[in-house]
Amino acid sequence: MNHAVIARVIGLILEIEAVCMLPSFAIALVTSGPDSSAFAFSISLCAVVGFLLLRLPQRSKRFQTRDGFVAVALCWIVLGLTGAIPYTLSGFSYVDAVFETVSGFTTTGATIVAAPSALPRGLQFWRALTQWMGGMGVLVMVLALLPSLGEGSVNLMKAESPGPISSKLLPKTSETAKSLYLIYIALTLSETVILRLAGMPLFDSLTTSFTTISTGGFSIRDASIAYYQSELINWIIVLFMFVSGVNFGVLFQVQRRQWKEALRSEELRWYTLITLGAIGCIAADLILKAGKGVYESLSQSAFQVVTLMTTTGYATADFDLWPYFSRMLLILVMFVGGCAGSTAGGVKVSRLVILLKNLKRELRRILHTREVRPLTLEGARVAEGTVSSVSVFFFAYILITLLCTAVVSLEEPDFTTAFTAALTTISNVGPGFSLVGPTCNFSFMTALSKVALTVTMLLGRLEIMPLLVLLFPGVWKRK
Amino acid sequence: MNHAVIARVIGLILEIEAVCMLPSFAIALVTSGPDSSAFAFSISLCAVVGFLLLRLPQRSKRFQTRDGFVAVALCWIVLGLTGAIPYTLSGFSYVDAVFETVSGFTTTGATIVAAPSALPRGLQFWRALTQWMGGMGVLVMVLALLPSLGEGSVNLMKAESPGPISSKLLPKTSETAKSLYLIYIALTLSETVILRLAGMPLFDSLTTSFTTISTGGFSIRDASIAYYQSELINWIIVLFMFVSGVNFGVLFQVQRRQWKEALRSEELRWYTLITLGAIGCIAADLILKAGKGVYESLSQSAFQVVTLMTTTGYATADFDLWPYFSRMLLILVMFVGGCAGSTAGGVKVSRLVILLKNLKRELRRILHTREVRPLTLEGARVAEGTVSSVSVFFFAYILITLLCTAVVSLEEPDFTTAFTAALTTISNVGPGFSLVGPTCNFSFMTALSKVALTVTMLLGRLEIMPLLVLLFPGVWKRK
Repeated sequence: MNHAVIARVIGLILEIEAVCMLPSFAIALVTSGPDSSAFAFSISLCAVVGFLLLRLPQRSKRFQTRDGFVAVALCWIVLGLTGAIPYTLSGFSYVDAVFETVSGFTTTGATIVAAPSALPRGLQFWRALTQWMGGMGVLVMVLALLPSLGEGSVNLMKAESPGPISSKLLPKTSETAKSLYLIYIALTLSETVILRLAGMPLFDSLTTSFTTISTGGFSIRDASIAYYQSELINWIIVLFMFVSGVNFGVLFQVQRRQWKEALRSEELRWYTLITLGAIGCIAADLILKAGKGVYESLSQSAFQVVTLMTTTGYATADFDLWPYFSRMLLILVMFVGGCAGSTAGGVKVSRLVILLKNLKRELRRILHTREVRPLTLEGARVAEGTVSSVSVFFFAYILITLLCTAVVSLEEPDFTTAFTAALTTISNVGPGFSLVGPTCNFSFMTALSKVALTVTMLLGRLEIMPLLVLLFPGVWKRK
Repeated sequence: MNHAVIARVIGLILEIEAVCMLPSFAIALVTSGPDSSAFAFSISLCAVVGFLLLRLPQRSKRFQTRDGFVAVALCWIVLGLTGAIPYTLSGFSYVDAVFETVSGFTTTGATIVAAPSALPRGLQFWRALTQWMGGMGVLVMVLALLPSLGEGSVNLMKAESPGPISSKLLPKTSETAKSLYLIYIALTLSETVILRLAGMPLFDSLTTSFTTISTGGFSIRDASIAYYQSELINWIIVLFMFVSGVNFGVLFQVQRRQWKEALRSEELRWYTLITLGAIGCIAADLILKAGKGVYESLSQSAFQVVTLMTTTGYATADFDLWPYFSRMLLILVMFVGGCAGSTAGGVKVSRLVILLKNLKRELRRILHTREVRPLTLEGARVAEGTVSSVSVFFFAYILITLLCTAVVSLEEPDFTTAFTAALTTISNVGPGFSLVGPTCNFSFMTALSKVALTVTMLLGRLEIMPLLVLLFPGVWKRK
């Protein structure tokens, strides 16, 4: 392992974190908030430690796959531990602060804050900004800002970007990272402007855009998006959530006006199909069983399906009171998640498509003994190694969900609470059902459960392997 | 597809079913039960239809893999539909009757009968016997009785026997089938004698042995095994359930006094380890959280862990009142199931071991780029095709469990009921939690749920693929 480069990457991350805390510090100063000293201290600490790490001597810039995995895993752990300092200096316990910070960076949106509207403005901004930073990936940001990180820096991006197949959009990693961030910023600014025009206050528009485009789901309002009582705002947010759940490679094609190529995307079609199917089924269920009106059912169904499937996790309705069939479908879309290469979590649509095609191939193999056709996705052949990795990922996903459920069960909540808490954290959604439903929060849980769920959020965001790799003793050896 | 051979196999199955109904008929006659005419009619019908099918002209005896899969799937469907006739002639609705019959043949043990003790003796016997017939496999019985079924009859056994790797114990399929049945019969008789000696009435001993060795779980007593109020009987049953969850290949080695080879079995060691680990954790949980005594906790934990992990499903305690951590562990062992090549259901220990080893290999691959070592199990290399099939199986298992949960959710039970109903049927266990807990039954459910759960039981018992293959239109073409 290349210790020196990893230390340097962590140093960079700390500097970036310090810089990203500056706006919150400024807001705290302007609003004379009680959190200004918390930010002043956190910024100094991150800046100094980061500086020291950057001063360590460098020998080689070579980065192997595993160095990428380890660097990404360590960076995210460091981000969670240091990003929590402003919270903990504002009175939160450290476990709660880390939970909230990791929930931010991983774009989960599960919260231990009962009334986010009562937080000082600086912390509100930091809370939303962590999601925005985590959405596209903090390492991707490093790559966009510093093209000179060295050879093999694509391994950093590979380890941090979600999805079974990572493709470079442009020949250079740094160019790819930059173009991704440009789309990301453009979407965020567009939503901010549109929400502002729709009547949302500016601070709300900006923080909401941060947490929509990153599919994070934090809100500065206690009642989440339901606070605004505006159908127009709901639909604007639905649109932006849906777009943020699309593979950014497709958005890149759209940006270059390659409409045909973009619309040909197989994953996009499946993603749209699943979304519309779930909206239709749930709307029908709400009309038939809950006796709601047609428009109300469609509107609420659309918002909740899109917000849970893109793993954003806003609330406009208490879906924990909906008929059980609707709730079960919402649990299913929480498993599915968005497209690979988007800011959304979950298993990802393309992985599910690969798994379904692999199931179909297995049945075909039984019928026509021994014939093995390659799988295709997006018109190209999927390498057998990828199919295998996807299967391993799915198994690990279920395994971790069940183990996390077992750990949370130790504190004796009902099964639905424990299971959906595990599911909502590994899929980076936010709310679950029962005691962690959309009107509840995670503050009541024991420290053990919070730690387990925090780890599960990280496992979900980093797609499991980078964190599990840290468990191998061999990783820590200097090469 | 070889239609003629498949018709012949179904004919044979019907004849065997008719013969197997004879003891129930005799019991009905002796006890002057109201069910004697029901059995007389069912026996005649099966015998006549079976005879007609056997008279169809035969051209080739060749049996391909897919013919094996289709024959097994159709046989099990026919068994479920015809085995239900005695129930339905005794007053059960046909949906209920098929549910109960399929629950029998698949050794699930989920029941719609609130008071089995009130059933006529003949039906009680038939109910237990369906489990015994289904445990080792009805097609395996055919192979044991009729060595002359033709070439490729190993494909029948492959499709019906559980587990990722099917091995012939003896060079000839029919010899293997015969030796498996000898062990099966020996275990059943031993348990009957020992239970009788422990004070259980003879009829109870025999029917309980039928449902223990097949890991079925039906009981002729309303309170299941709790009725006998005997610690001795509980421990005897625990022992026999545990043995029935072991790969019969290992039992075959034991029978031949190849102790060393038997004890070297990797799957056996994992199976023992998981069982003991779960017993220990749950006993500790019961002592600490439920305040039970040490012996009582160990005894109840041992019984419930073994009965749920071997997917038998007897009840001695209402584990639905246990602490949530214990309940969650019980749900996990219901997923795991017994060893491959045993009468138990679930994902199977060897599959989980392969999946875990594959996960470890994937992590190793990330660390040491590109190096792919073969997986080993029981000291031998596992073919990559097998690893892939196991992964596909796991995905299909989870997918079906979740889809079945969604269908059951349509009738609005709580999530725990719907999920554990799906899990307990696909794993062929019997009881679940909440409304389908150990003191409840499935009679309250809608016909739609019952049909979905019936299909799920068959999918679980036949390990998914044989039934899914039927959905391909190409299967039905004559070759």
